[in-house]
Amino acid sequence: MFAVIPAFIGSAQAEEGMWTFDHLPVRQMKQQYGFEPSVEWINHVIQSSARLAEGCSASFVSGDGLVMTNHHCANTCLTDLSDKNHDYFHDGFSAREVSKEPQCPGMELDRLDQVKDVTGRVAEMTAGKHGAEYAKALQVANSVLTKECAVGDASHWRCDVVTLYHGGQTALYRYRRYQDVRLVMAPDQDIAFFGGDPDNFTFPRYDIDLSMLRVFEDGKPVHTPFFKFDPKGPKAGDLVFTSGNPGRTQRSLPASALAFQRDVSLPTIIAAYSTLEGALWQYSRESKAHLIDAQNTLFGVQNALKSLSGTAKALREPGVIEKRKTEDQALQAWIDADAERRKTYGEPYKKVEAALAVQRQYYEHDFAITRTVHGLLGDAVMLVSAAHERKKPDTERRAGYHDAELAALETEIAAKVPVHTELETTTLALGMTTMRQILGEDDAAVHLILGTKSPDERAVELIQGTKLADPAERLALYKGGVKAIESSKDPMIVLARHLQPVLDTIRNRSRDQIEAPMHEAQGTIARAQFARAQAEGKADTLYPDATFSPRLSYGTVKGFQDGAKVIAPFTDFAGMYKHATGSDPFRLPQVWLDAKPHLNLSTKLDYVSTNDIVGGNSGSPVINRQGDVVGLIFDGNLDSLAGDLYYDIERNRAVSTDTSAIMAALRIVYHADALADELETGKLKSRPE
Amino acid sequence: MFAVIPAFIGSAQAEEGMWTFDHLPVRQMKQQYGFEPSVEWINHVIQSSARLAEGCSASFVSGDGLVMTNHHCANTCLTDLSDKNHDYFHDGFSAREVSKEPQCPGMELDRLDQVKDVTGRVAEMTAGKHGAEYAKALQVANSVLTKECAVGDASHWRCDVVTLYHGGQTALYRYRRYQDVRLVMAPDQDIAFFGGDPDNFTFPRYDIDLSMLRVFEDGKPVHTPFFKFDPKGPKAGDLVFTSGNPGRTQRSLPASALAFQRDVSLPTIIAAYSTLEGALWQYSRESKAHLIDAQNTLFGVQNALKSLSGTAKALREPGVIEKRKTEDQALQAWIDADAERRKTYGEPYKKVEAALAVQRQYYEHDFAITRTVHGLLGDAVMLVSAAHERKKPDTERRAGYHDAELAALETEIAAKVPVHTELETTTLALGMTTMRQILGEDDAAVHLILGTKSPDERAVELIQGTKLADPAERLALYKGGVKAIESSKDPMIVLARHLQPVLDTIRNRSRDQIEAPMHEAQGTIARAQFARAQAEGKADTLYPDATFSPRLSYGTVKGFQDGAKVIAPFTDFAGMYKHATGSDPFRLPQVWLDAKPHLNLSTKLDYVSTNDIVGGNSGSPVINRQGDVVGLIFDGNLDSLAGDLYYDIERNRAVSTDTSAIMAALRIVYHADALADELETGKLKSRPE
Repeated sequence: MFAVIPAFIGSAQAEEGMWTFDHLPVRQMKQQYGFEPSVEWINHVIQSSARLAEGCSASFVSGDGLVMTNHHCANTCLTDLSDKNHDYFHDGFSAREVSKEPQCPGMELDRLDQVKDVTGRVAEMTAGKHGAEYAKALQVANSVLTKECAVGDASHWRCDVVTLYHGGQTALYRYRRYQDVRLVMAPDQDIAFFGGDPDNFTFPRYDIDLSMLRVFEDGKPVHTPFFKFDPKGPKAGDLVFTSGNPGRTQRSLPASALAFQRDVSLPTIIAAYSTLEGALWQYSRESKAHLIDAQNTLFGVQNALKSLSGTAKALREPGVIEKRKTEDQALQAWIDADAERRKTYGEPYKKVEAALAVQRQYYEHDFAITRTVHGLLGDAVMLVSAAHERKKPDTERRAGYHDAELAALETEIAAKVPVHTELETTTLALGMTTMRQILGEDDAAVHLILGTKSPDERAVELIQGTKLADPAERLALYKGGVKAIESSKDPMIVLARHLQPVLDTIRNRSRDQIEAPMHEAQGTIARAQFARAQAEGKADTLYPDATFSPRLSYGTVKGFQDGAKVIAPFTDFAGMYKHATGSDPFRLPQVWLDAKPHLNLSTKLDYVSTNDIVGGNSGSPVINRQGDVVGLIFDGNLDSLAGDLYYDIERNRAVSTDTSAIMAALRIVYHADALADELETGKLKSRPE
Repeated sequence: MFAVIPAFIGSAQAEEGMWTFDHLPVRQMKQQYGFEPSVEWINHVIQSSARLAEGCSASFVSGDGLVMTNHHCANTCLTDLSDKNHDYFHDGFSAREVSKEPQCPGMELDRLDQVKDVTGRVAEMTAGKHGAEYAKALQVANSVLTKECAVGDASHWRCDVVTLYHGGQTALYRYRRYQDVRLVMAPDQDIAFFGGDPDNFTFPRYDIDLSMLRVFEDGKPVHTPFFKFDPKGPKAGDLVFTSGNPGRTQRSLPASALAFQRDVSLPTIIAAYSTLEGALWQYSRESKAHLIDAQNTLFGVQNALKSLSGTAKALREPGVIEKRKTEDQALQAWIDADAERRKTYGEPYKKVEAALAVQRQYYEHDFAITRTVHGLLGDAVMLVSAAHERKKPDTERRAGYHDAELAALETEIAAKVPVHTELETTTLALGMTTMRQILGEDDAAVHLILGTKSPDERAVELIQGTKLADPAERLALYKGGVKAIESSKDPMIVLARHLQPVLDTIRNRSRDQIEAPMHEAQGTIARAQFARAQAEGKADTLYPDATFSPRLSYGTVKGFQDGAKVIAPFTDFAGMYKHATGSDPFRLPQVWLDAKPHLNLSTKLDYVSTNDIVGGNSGSPVINRQGDVVGLIFDGNLDSLAGDLYYDIERNRAVSTDTSAIMAALRIVYHADALADELETGKLKSRPE
């Protein structure tokens, strides 16, 4: 399942591309499918789509704030709302009426309001600057632009500076921000994620990876444009679109940056996550309570691992990096062939390599430290940062602490997210163990964090000693500012204070010596690519790498070839019952076994399409030519994991749940008729006061 | 710590090389150090050295069968001898007298008796054959040669066909086999492995990684040549030698085979081991009993991971594979430059690539299945194989089941090795979980192994249902042959029977399509390298890749540079006490804290030398010009992990415990005066009847 996560220039093939709404591949769609979207169609899609700040996509499916997304996009909410007696993550949830829909702690949903091209302004503000100076100027630009954009009301507007084409273009995205999102309905985990980790990223597939949320404002459901819900779903061969927020691709990264990932970053991350997976696997086996505690985290880790391993595997395929290298060399040769171009673009690939050499030197060290900072220690570090950053002028603050961002930050701090003390002790102890493995006992940061204690002793001491699990305590420390932070005796805050200079060193080095020069050089590469494409009349085949901002993809419902096997585009309920072994994770919920005689077994369940999507697209609506929703993206097939690097129409497939299966599940299995009616009519039967 | 594990041509630099005793670098040693070993010196070293079949090296240090090796080489023995009330692995062990020395279950020690060059005979027997035919001919050669060599007494003679230079030379090694090895003494794990996993493969170091064993025959200690124990240890700059059994290096593997490891095998293994590490880490935290159960396995996994990750890291260093590729191309160019050579050697690198293409296709699949086969399931598979293989003529059997090997096999089957049921259920369930993750639910082997059960359910069912934990049961099945195996209802045996064809397919494919052509092609490469070296007058600079057979290395006691730091060659007891934090794994045993006032704190503890060693060398004696033992190899520094691929005199270092620390530990800390006397006099005070 695509990761819930927080860039590319390629010359797009048919169906390839994650297009920004202001630069849609109109010529290609018209040529291939005779489809030309109207301005109304486009605006309707933009306004009915949504993004979950945690890293998913979603869509409005009624005029009363009803939102459809994946079950796995509501994992955290389902876990947070659970307690000893209720395991909503596993057993599902259904609110009897609107007034009984509980708020998802800390969940934020954003809806795109406007996009402004600020390439020129950013270029002005950074002109002639390099390295740390460039990084500082970018930071100022960010601060100034987002402040302007939020028009003094940051709790209603979220503004993101989005770097497209790795710096070739900069846009300011303003979203309507909603921070009261409630849970309406979620099916059982055993149908949402039927087949579990073994089936994850595969097809044929038999999941209804659905959750329904509702957006409130001032205590009432919001009214927005929405997608009409088509309970028939699509047919094979239909042209379909996804409107969502693909998280990150690297289809235009230089070969050297890909090699860095293959050789340095991915091996480090995969090893650490694998160890964490094993620890959580065993932890979950210890008791029912541990299983409930850890299942969401374990799910996230396994999902991330499968996705990262897919990227790593694609990078290790013979020829993949070599091909990119040839492309890089071709662009450099194009630059070198002309004196004017040489002057304009210079040698950007060399600059990338220099930045990577710095990163190579520090990557493992910095990773070992920063990944230890999570959970309550992460909260402590954030509170210490917030106190110090807020003392600075807005333009000098780090991202996340600008005036325009403080309202959201405060909401996050105050959110009543339950803390699983035992699980957190385990993950903190493991994080510190791995840190010490990587850095050795004599490292200064290790001394700072552990003292003379073992990771286990230290984790227990920190978690048992801290009061940060209490939102009121966090809020008081936040509001108390530097004075409260400096005088706090909370052991997490004390540790965070000690860590601050270490983390500052890591952050500044990364910003000034790695990110800034990379950003500069990649912007240069992007501009050269543009210029070259323009000279060759191919500028409209370029789309930016994914940046977790709104994108449209087009494709068709279509099966694929898997080795010698031909895989049909649709699965159905009959296949689902056949796939069930009765044991975890191939166990169907009892309600589904009971409903079997009442279901039409030939109802379409899941399908694949050629849409070009990646992680972050989870929860995206699949829409048809009419702009009605006909499916719910929840995954890709195994080959789609290479989508991080390239798109291959023969192999990459997006995986969706069919709207016809959703409707049958709601009406026949879950007897959620009010909800089904709302989907079919586009409104609540009786709007609450 | 070097792995306890079950080959190379390079042009050796100074100190580089793991030399066979019949091809020592006499010219180089004489030139550099004015040292020319006499025939007596060489024979004395050969006869006083030993190999532990499980994957370590050792040395005889008294005329009464006393053997010195590492604590970590006796891990399994210490664990196997422990029970609820005794944790010898952690607390150490000391036999009060010879009659109280307990037998290490299943331990085998081998001492080299003779070496025969059989290159010509093997060449004759395989002439003109390729692929499966070649593999079969090799198998016949193995069977015939080892049978001849064991002279009808396989319980006394162990015969290994050793492929040197990857097939450039074949030798028949005959060892005197000892299967009654007893435990004499082991210090606490907290001093043997002080600093634990964080300090592993680093220096400065403060460990006494020692265990003392005794070899018996007919109920009495054996009498063999032995190394005199020099309790003064060496000085900085001294010429020292190691005599041991380096396990495996790949200094002459083609670049394509290295790329295969970097891109396919190592990522697969490291991910699986990391998950296992995490599960065992958590398992060990659950209770004291679990910690005792799992500590040896966890230690082994972490040690292997550190070593494999070191190799992987070296392979991912920019330029390492490229450099090898250049060397490969140079040899192919040398071949191509001459028509006669073209005819003799052809294009061996292309053949290697073809074999790797097959391996690439099946690696992950085969790994997922074969690694599930361990512990009791491994025993079951072995029993099924043994029944079927013994029905075949000797020459057609697989390695491990030849007549000459059956005595050892039967001893292994009958060994009273305790089974940790709960731990084994955990590792089996995890193995099956990983298998299903990799292969998917629909794979035929997954169906065969799991049926409709979850990995957890199935592991419990198998482990609780089997009687194979009982040595008598295993022996009865072994002796009962095919009839007993086919009629057994033991669920492990039933599963092993079902798995047999799957495993046969994997084994045969691997043997015929991967190993045989690789063996052939690498033999060709080795012969070409020889011919080229001879033409250039450099034949005596070539040494074979490590093959877990006896080798000598020479070097000097010498510190190294670690970044900006100069690392001195010796540590001492003072440094050890300073390094202790009091918490695990930097906690010293109480006896060591108590002994502090009585110890001379400037006593040398550990040291580094430039000897070229790798895993398998663990437990090797460090000897001086006189042939006396002055240290005990137990590890390498971090940079030595690249020793798998290349040796760098500036960075690679072997790490040993000084004999002066061993003597102080025995006399002052452990009051093991009888043992210390035996080391100093070379004999027991009173030989037992």
